[in-house]
Amino acid sequence: MRRAAEYLGLEVHGDAAQNLYMTYPGRDRNLAGILIGSHLDSVEQGGNYDGAAGVLAGLAVLAGFRRLDLMPPCDITVMAIRCEESAWFDTTYVGSYAAFGKLPLDELDVQHSKSGRTLAEQMEEAGCNLDAVRAGEAYLEPPRIRNFIEVHIEQAPHLVEENLPLGIVTGIRGIYRFRDACCWGVYGHSGALSRAQRKDAVAATVTLLHRMNEEWLRRESLGQDLVVTAGELYTNPEYHGPSSVAGETRFVLDIRSTSEIVLREMGVFARQATEEIARDAGVRFDLGRASYSQAAVMDPLVRDRLMEAGRQTGVPAIEMSSGAGHDAVVFANAGIPTGMIFIRNHHGSHNPDEAMDMEDFRAACRLLSAYLVMSFS
Amino acid sequence: MRRAAEYLGLEVHGDAAQNLYMTYPGRDRNLAGILIGSHLDSVEQGGNYDGAAGVLAGLAVLAGFRRLDLMPPCDITVMAIRCEESAWFDTTYVGSYAAFGKLPLDELDVQHSKSGRTLAEQMEEAGCNLDAVRAGEAYLEPPRIRNFIEVHIEQAPHLVEENLPLGIVTGIRGIYRFRDACCWGVYGHSGALSRAQRKDAVAATVTLLHRMNEEWLRRESLGQDLVVTAGELYTNPEYHGPSSVAGETRFVLDIRSTSEIVLREMGVFARQATEEIARDAGVRFDLGRASYSQAAVMDPLVRDRLMEAGRQTGVPAIEMSSGAGHDAVVFANAGIPTGMIFIRNHHGSHNPDEAMDMEDFRAACRLLSAYLVMSFS
Repeated sequence: MRRAAEYLGLEVHGDAAQNLYMTYPGRDRNLAGILIGSHLDSVEQGGNYDGAAGVLAGLAVLAGFRRLDLMPPCDITVMAIRCEESAWFDTTYVGSYAAFGKLPLDELDVQHSKSGRTLAEQMEEAGCNLDAVRAGEAYLEPPRIRNFIEVHIEQAPHLVEENLPLGIVTGIRGIYRFRDACCWGVYGHSGALSRAQRKDAVAATVTLLHRMNEEWLRRESLGQDLVVTAGELYTNPEYHGPSSVAGETRFVLDIRSTSEIVLREMGVFARQATEEIARDAGVRFDLGRASYSQAAVMDPLVRDRLMEAGRQTGVPAIEMSSGAGHDAVVFANAGIPTGMIFIRNHHGSHNPDEAMDMEDFRAACRLLSAYLVMSFS
Repeated sequence: MRRAAEYLGLEVHGDAAQNLYMTYPGRDRNLAGILIGSHLDSVEQGGNYDGAAGVLAGLAVLAGFRRLDLMPPCDITVMAIRCEESAWFDTTYVGSYAAFGKLPLDELDVQHSKSGRTLAEQMEEAGCNLDAVRAGEAYLEPPRIRNFIEVHIEQAPHLVEENLPLGIVTGIRGIYRFRDACCWGVYGHSGALSRAQRKDAVAATVTLLHRMNEEWLRRESLGQDLVVTAGELYTNPEYHGPSSVAGETRFVLDIRSTSEIVLREMGVFARQATEEIARDAGVRFDLGRASYSQAAVMDPLVRDRLMEAGRQTGVPAIEMSSGAGHDAVVFANAGIPTGMIFIRNHHGSHNPDEAMDMEDFRAACRLLSAYLVMSFS
């Protein structure tokens, strides 16, 4: 990315968390600038486009501006963000928070889910300035940022189902997640133990997930925005067996909603359900540390302008909410007028088959260019 | 075991499947003999007593006979049986079936769950005569066996709850097991996908296990004997993630009942449930190969005599059914009058904490001795 930016003659800077800023200078360097950005990390077994497409879209637009020798009134900066994904450290938006000097310090001690090394250790190895991160030094200041715009592949098939290339985001779901949940029962013989004699960790976990699903159905029928997922669930391969009642499960409980109230209520529901089931089933649940990621609304004026830019360039777009979390949450909740453009993606996300038609990517770049030019007047 | 038997002056023989026979000769070597036996293998993370206690009980009784220089009317043989457990090859009673020349030949090709090597390969390495096993050569002939008696630790806490040292078994549960069941969905982003857009393998598997439990509850309320267990359940660690809908689960479905009818009906229920859930949830279930292990009833005359032997020796015993499977199933279903003595065990079975008071073991040996002496008259 740095090489591409230098090739385009952009000013390149880094911050203490190794986020990369690639700036096309404007007429008045003192004016608040426009920031275009997304993340460069992905999940294990992720595809090619989650995150990276947004950084490339920004660079592509600036390459066009350079070719036309266009002089914007203010700086336009493309930001390549680090560590947006929560897959490794169970904490989202590390790069974005650090750019504002707001990374919660206890998150530096969270261990990588595979290597067991702490976030601080991994950041140090990646060349970050941990002293500055710990001191809360901010590279970005909200008053200096006029808008934050993020281009991103859609991670649901809404646009595919609507047969449209682009979406303009209205709001982003928050996340309440128990990443290290577990249930402790007692191992025993699967044929010999009656129901009353069992302390079956799998049965208790199934009951919990079933109840979470029932509550999701109930709230869905009331029109509340909600999804509940257990993406990881496993018995202990050291002890489990085909003829044994399982004494142990580990699982992730991931709860998402655009409503902060629904998130909190579902967290309470999960804790109450585990207590009831533990009593009935003779097991013990430990939901572990809960991580929390805020919901966010996109700026209405930015949304309107993005929709207008779509109409001007003949690119059909619809408004839609985002189920997935994005760096845009951090910028919106820092008080910066923020907007997002979604690109159609045929095979979902967080899997190796993410897809993006280059024609759709081009449409997103055209819409983004039109939005920027509109912003200049 | 062989050394202990030789020390006691017993005749020692092996068969093609490496079962060990340790014989105390009787007055008339041509009479049908009495067989006392259990298995020497256990599960991974199993304890010290499952199986082995029964072989030792037989040897302890013969040691007493030897000391008294007692001459029984017929041979008494202690059999140390190989490969009773289904944990490795998803097939039960390998040693017992092979002793009768009745090991199903396709089971020789089943792979060890950890090493991946076939049962035939492992048997060959253990010194078995595979040609004889394949040819169905029988070492044991039912008409030559007057009774089969198995002493075994109880694998449920019934005797602990009853505060009694010994139980006399009435019948043994059969097993219908899908050991390599799996569910295939599609991986996706846990925040972005609505309920309708998901093909969530965990959610579908939870629904299946919940329905199996509901059906178990229903049949329990009708007084049917049944237990249903998923002792292994896991998402794929290569692909699963805290922010992904799971595209894959693997699990074991273990169904046990003393009623062959209930077993078959539950197998049909499982297959129908998976088809319905697959349609609703957009996933595909593959229950894989089903293994089946017969239920068996213990001989009423043997049961009566064992209870009578308990009364004679002042050892309190109660009649009870066995939830776990035992080699005795093979002998009973071969037409041999069969009985079982259970020894109290404080911490369940198929875990490292199996327990047996030596006083209870002694009581079992006394009861077994009394039974044998009673059989001689």
